[in-house]
Amino acid sequence: MYHVVIVAGGSGSRMQSELPKQFIELQGKPILMHTIERFAEFPEKLNIILVLPQKDIPLWEELCEKHSFQADIITVMGGQTRYHSVENGLKTINDDQGYVAIHDGVRPFIELETIALGFETAKEKGSAVVSVPLKDSIREVDREGNKAVERSAYRLIQTPQTFPVGKLKEAFASGYQEAFTDDASVYEFAGHSITLIEGDYKNIKLTTPEDLVVAEAFLNSSK
Amino acid sequence: MYHVVIVAGGSGSRMQSELPKQFIELQGKPILMHTIERFAEFPEKLNIILVLPQKDIPLWEELCEKHSFQADIITVMGGQTRYHSVENGLKTINDDQGYVAIHDGVRPFIELETIALGFETAKEKGSAVVSVPLKDSIREVDREGNKAVERSAYRLIQTPQTFPVGKLKEAFASGYQEAFTDDASVYEFAGHSITLIEGDYKNIKLTTPEDLVVAEAFLNSSK
Repeated sequence: MYHVVIVAGGSGSRMQSELPKQFIELQGKPILMHTIERFAEFPEKLNIILVLPQKDIPLWEELCEKHSFQADIITVMGGQTRYHSVENGLKTINDDQGYVAIHDGVRPFIELETIALGFETAKEKGSAVVSVPLKDSIREVDREGNKAVERSAYRLIQTPQTFPVGKLKEAFASGYQEAFTDDASVYEFAGHSITLIEGDYKNIKLTTPEDLVVAEAFLNSSK
Repeated sequence: MYHVVIVAGGSGSRMQSELPKQFIELQGKPILMHTIERFAEFPEKLNIILVLPQKDIPLWEELCEKHSFQADIITVMGGQTRYHSVENGLKTINDDQGYVAIHDGVRPFIELETIALGFETAKEKGSAVVSVPLKDSIREVDREGNKAVERSAYRLIQTPQTFPVGKLKEAFASGYQEAFTDDASVYEFAGHSITLIEGDYKNIKLTTPEDLVVAEAFLNSSK
């Protein structure tokens, strides 16, 4: 069985918005609904788990009513950090033989093909993390200064990040660390290797005001 | 005196275009003209040097005529690689006491404030390279696999990259190496330290077809 945990815990601060960023509207509909729709459209039925900060749940329910948004999803309360939110989402899954994709609520441009590749690769290789090569040069910085590093030796990491449910739960059971910036780092810390799969540049995380301009353009161009 | 070398040697291959990408039109005007206009609008008079592949010069002249594009620029023939193109551009500058910004021809969204900060910082610190923090997680890859690395320890590098003319020429005199992906790496290899300055996410390098959608949206939103 395939599951997806959609994590939407962001504030609107970098968006210069009062509204949490997942609720900002794109073409009249909250970003989070665009994201959920991608997974709802997946040809195989997915168990969709949405993790939201407790304080945002009433507003989300209001928005669902306003937009007559009906998707078969489980809504779960988030935790202190992204790690704790994902953990809360995982707790609702009893199917340890299944596979779970963890996805950012503010990445509404994920392709169905990439979601599918994630599940297939996780089944075959034990994990699947969406990534893209860097377009720009990159430098490493520290207190002393900075130095050029080989761009081709790095990949930018996106979501979904897909894992076997049982093993991912075990990895999360080892406890929180500040260095965990995503689920791949939790899984890696538990001793598993990470398989990267190729994503695409369109699968952006909507973070800053320019991203909204970009997102509107992507939506218009796909019509 | 302030100079800028605008390097436009790209092909259209990643754009899935026959036309070299710098000539693709945005709102009816080649990308390269948008880029040149930014520097032409700089409050202080800049010596603008445009480096183009020899084969593209006739088309560029045609386009300038078609668009009645008049900017006071020096056009120079490009070389085998970006390194050689920049070198050809530098050869036209006799003013070793001046400062030169090297800029990608397909980054038309550079802000005048960032250009100014580049010249000021290069004067004060010896170099100025525009960079932004990473929004996504990052992993280091090699033949064995890949591992999480600390995102805050890296910066994505853009242009302009600004240097004292005399010292940059000296750095280029030490000869080409394949590891030189940008001008900062040439300057660093010559023993100089690199000062990073803060850019913004809008200053994208137009590389892939999605970037054109994004660029049109940026142009529309700034009207």
